[in-house]
Amino acid sequence: MATSDLKLLGTWACPYVNRAQLALKVKSIEYEFVEDIPYKKSEMLLKYNPVHKKIPVLIHSDKPVCESLVIVQYVDDAWATGPSILPSDPYDRALARFWVAYIDDKWYPLVKVLREAEGEEERRELVQKVSEGLVLLEDAFVRCSKGKDFFGGDSIGYLDIVLGSCLGWLRVTEIVVEVALLDRTKTPRLAEWADRFSSDDAVKDVLPETEKLLELHRKIQDFLKAA
Amino acid sequence: MATSDLKLLGTWACPYVNRAQLALKVKSIEYEFVEDIPYKKSEMLLKYNPVHKKIPVLIHSDKPVCESLVIVQYVDDAWATGPSILPSDPYDRALARFWVAYIDDKWYPLVKVLREAEGEEERRELVQKVSEGLVLLEDAFVRCSKGKDFFGGDSIGYLDIVLGSCLGWLRVTEIVVEVALLDRTKTPRLAEWADRFSSDDAVKDVLPETEKLLELHRKIQDFLKAA
Repeated sequence: MATSDLKLLGTWACPYVNRAQLALKVKSIEYEFVEDIPYKKSEMLLKYNPVHKKIPVLIHSDKPVCESLVIVQYVDDAWATGPSILPSDPYDRALARFWVAYIDDKWYPLVKVLREAEGEEERRELVQKVSEGLVLLEDAFVRCSKGKDFFGGDSIGYLDIVLGSCLGWLRVTEIVVEVALLDRTKTPRLAEWADRFSSDDAVKDVLPETEKLLELHRKIQDFLKAA
Repeated sequence: MATSDLKLLGTWACPYVNRAQLALKVKSIEYEFVEDIPYKKSEMLLKYNPVHKKIPVLIHSDKPVCESLVIVQYVDDAWATGPSILPSDPYDRALARFWVAYIDDKWYPLVKVLREAEGEEERRELVQKVSEGLVLLEDAFVRCSKGKDFFGGDSIGYLDIVLGSCLGWLRVTEIVVEVALLDRTKTPRLAEWADRFSSDDAVKDVLPETEKLLELHRKIQDFLKAA
């Protein structure tokens, strides 16, 4: 695979871009990372993702693949090398897809709203909801991992990549609202999984450091207040 | 396949349920349809979909599969019989997934809002947006079908099922707002596809009649006004 044949358009701090990076890393696929400046739609972005004008975009032999979940599944489908990202059993695959949809449609949007929330009451309610979601995901971990290290079993799979990509911003949110969301008492297995995932060789070079994300978060907040 | 082994929990007028029905029909899989009364969460629904408490739920050997897109993909994965629902080529599969996400996340929600919209200005804007979406989907049809009858090529595929399931309520919306949304001048190929899809043997017994949906829509509106 010539590097020039495969480009990923994105930025380091975006969890959706991190998913694409993680999928490519798990599969040991080389690619060129093209840093896209956030909030400024580049010509390349407008050309390759005219519908949503959003990163990430994976460009394979000049053909674009857009949307993080579509990219992760495409990487799994298109390269036979490395471990499978999606489970091989149809029911396990359905379970993984169900929880991935739960994370993207229900749970992670709440984390984002919580990070920006200002009212005490609103924060309390959101902390409650995010924590309840993590309890559901703890249960999902038990059912999907079947006693193994990852949602995907012995190796990092679809659900690991999708939930794992949210961990950096979840930690930033914990610092901002001063609450331990991924609680070691309420969700011990998920907390252990998060440690294991974050220190995995395929992950540690991709997932941004919490400190760097926190710095970015504060810069954005300052910018918004000044505007 | 014993019918008792496979149940679909749903109601006839729900496009998301229709997707599951269409997938099972395309694959010629027999199942028991368990009519679930809308707006009243049955014990069976609460047991099998405790997270979302929503139809459709496919119950296979007592194991639930929830969420329409997850069900359609599960049906394709779990039964080798009949034609494939997802395209076999990885890039074609990515394209189908991209447009399916576009329909569910962007386009179809607008159709629903339009149907309920009361202000003239709001309606005009929504008609514009829904129509622009259909122009994008016309383009997607040309690219995905490659000159054949369906998005999936020679036979009904993933994108056909997902967009096709929205056709009944799209037609109701056209009647309610008195505008031809699926315009034969602006989107001739998509309009032809819609005719072809709706009259297909696998579809015509599943897709609800527009008249029946319209009657239901009016009943719901009367109920809401009286409440």
